[in-house]
Amino acid sequence: MNTPSRRLEVWAPDGMPEVAAGDDLAGLVLDALGHGAELADGDVLCVTSKVVSKAEGRVRAGERDAAVEEETVRVVARRGPVRIVRNRLGLTMAAAGVDASNVAPGSVVLLPLDPDASARALRDAVHRRTGTNVGVVVTDTSGRAWREGQTDIAIGAAGLLVAEDFAGRTDPHGNPLAVTLPAVADEVAGAAELAQGKLAGRPVAVVRGRADLVLPPGEHGPGAASLVRPDGGDLFGWGAREAVVRALAGDEADRAPFGAPAAPDELHAAVARVVGTGQALSSALLLTHDDQPRRAALRLPGDADHAAVAAVCFAHGWRIDAWERTGNDVVCDVSPATT
Amino acid sequence: MNTPSRRLEVWAPDGMPEVAAGDDLAGLVLDALGHGAELADGDVLCVTSKVVSKAEGRVRAGERDAAVEEETVRVVARRGPVRIVRNRLGLTMAAAGVDASNVAPGSVVLLPLDPDASARALRDAVHRRTGTNVGVVVTDTSGRAWREGQTDIAIGAAGLLVAEDFAGRTDPHGNPLAVTLPAVADEVAGAAELAQGKLAGRPVAVVRGRADLVLPPGEHGPGAASLVRPDGGDLFGWGAREAVVRALAGDEADRAPFGAPAAPDELHAAVARVVGTGQALSSALLLTHDDQPRRAALRLPGDADHAAVAAVCFAHGWRIDAWERTGNDVVCDVSPATT
Repeated sequence: MNTPSRRLEVWAPDGMPEVAAGDDLAGLVLDALGHGAELADGDVLCVTSKVVSKAEGRVRAGERDAAVEEETVRVVARRGPVRIVRNRLGLTMAAAGVDASNVAPGSVVLLPLDPDASARALRDAVHRRTGTNVGVVVTDTSGRAWREGQTDIAIGAAGLLVAEDFAGRTDPHGNPLAVTLPAVADEVAGAAELAQGKLAGRPVAVVRGRADLVLPPGEHGPGAASLVRPDGGDLFGWGAREAVVRALAGDEADRAPFGAPAAPDELHAAVARVVGTGQALSSALLLTHDDQPRRAALRLPGDADHAAVAAVCFAHGWRIDAWERTGNDVVCDVSPATT
Repeated sequence: MNTPSRRLEVWAPDGMPEVAAGDDLAGLVLDALGHGAELADGDVLCVTSKVVSKAEGRVRAGERDAAVEEETVRVVARRGPVRIVRNRLGLTMAAAGVDASNVAPGSVVLLPLDPDASARALRDAVHRRTGTNVGVVVTDTSGRAWREGQTDIAIGAAGLLVAEDFAGRTDPHGNPLAVTLPAVADEVAGAAELAQGKLAGRPVAVVRGRADLVLPPGEHGPGAASLVRPDGGDLFGWGAREAVVRALAGDEADRAPFGAPAAPDELHAAVARVVGTGQALSSALLLTHDDQPRRAALRLPGDADHAAVAAVCFAHGWRIDAWERTGNDVVCDVSPATT
């Protein structure tokens, strides 16, 4: 009756026991999956970070706030009680991924120290004990910048193509698919969450039907770390309010999240916007021998505010070297901050 | 052999024809699913926005850039060729969701005018023709602020609980799950994408196994629009660089994305950070009869930069009413911008 189709199965077994520090996680996971009989080559085995952390002893007694601070590299945005931070793993999340649910009251669970390594260890153990070649994803629950609610994402992965790269491929109409990079590991994590739920004690799930994403035994692939944009590599390294405060405060330590130096024309346009729409403004640009901008001079209206121009330069990865009044204008020499 | 578990099936049928303006989308979708025989009550039927748009005639000849502009409400962040914009639907996406793939070369596909309405129409048509009560999700491909690659998300939904609300629920350990709100509609969309792929001409998928999320016939639920944070309701309404430029330019039209007025202590801390760490600074606060802040006075060091303080106030939803030098200090009267 069924038409030809691509079919996936996703299941999350009941009966996984509470996990404690030092437990044999692979053994418990395999037990929950019919002693491994339910696994087949090409399956993707998903495990919540929570049980990985518990097995690895990443549970702390005490206050959640102290644990969040410990895991935080940088507070990206804060409003009232909400703190969005970038954590040790480069993940930008509320509360650094520290979780006080599904753990004994008064305790908190930190994320695994190296979730890709945790995924590799679980994959190797499954292969060693059952001979089955699976991909492994370690999942965690994450909010999104512009959308309500959370989805599960892959914070660790082994033996899995975490993103399908279509660069150089074309669609059936012949259009290039240059920027299409489906983050399939995150979609696998979300599918697993649909089967697991949050309250039913099902931290394990299997996704079957995408064996094309699973790598040969011994090849672990790039891991979920490859899905994290490097600091400064995204456009949202600071919350909107924090960006304003950081740029005006101008501490060098706060510069990296704004990213690499902007192209000179982008800096020029940004400064022009701030010193006054329609104001006369010109810029001259000096290049290095390899065509990288080395220095630029901005001619600004005489009433241009130094603090404002400095903040715009800071946010664009440039710094002011000189600020000189010439007649009715100001000439502002700037250079890229990282050179 | 199988242990007790929660099981999901996801399948994406082959054989869906190319869709054109005015086509009977429900008819084509049902045909691809064994004339509807493959659907059961409680299934979630997923359709890419692309085929919905094509059926609704949302295809334009011409340049992608012009179409992006048409769909854009606000450019949130821009760097080089990358434009992250908030579009008509409130979705923050690269290129406003305008797509030039899987369409005839020289044409672009805009998002449906009202994807929740499209989902409701498809759901009603399926019910009318087959008697089957399904949930419907209209999917689209979206990047994320801090992660590489894209996942599919729900931009339209009907008859589906788009988020599971655990407010007031407790985990098995008795911990409250106050902020846990799994955006299951987005996870369903991602699972569908895993079955559909980008190149195989499978724009339809069915997710079976979460009938608990599907509402009774006639109840369409809140739709995917409810997953969109309102403008200013997120902390990332501007890219980091754009935030700096917009706050310093201070155009009232750019204020809303920064959000509602900050609490006075947050404004105070932000201004203190900018006028110089360790500088003497105090503030007095006047409240309205309903305890809402009405006015505050900030005492600032005499060398505080007016443009800088104004920008911080702007970004925090406040405005400067007066700026008066008194001895060595400045007294700066401020009030919430929206009152």
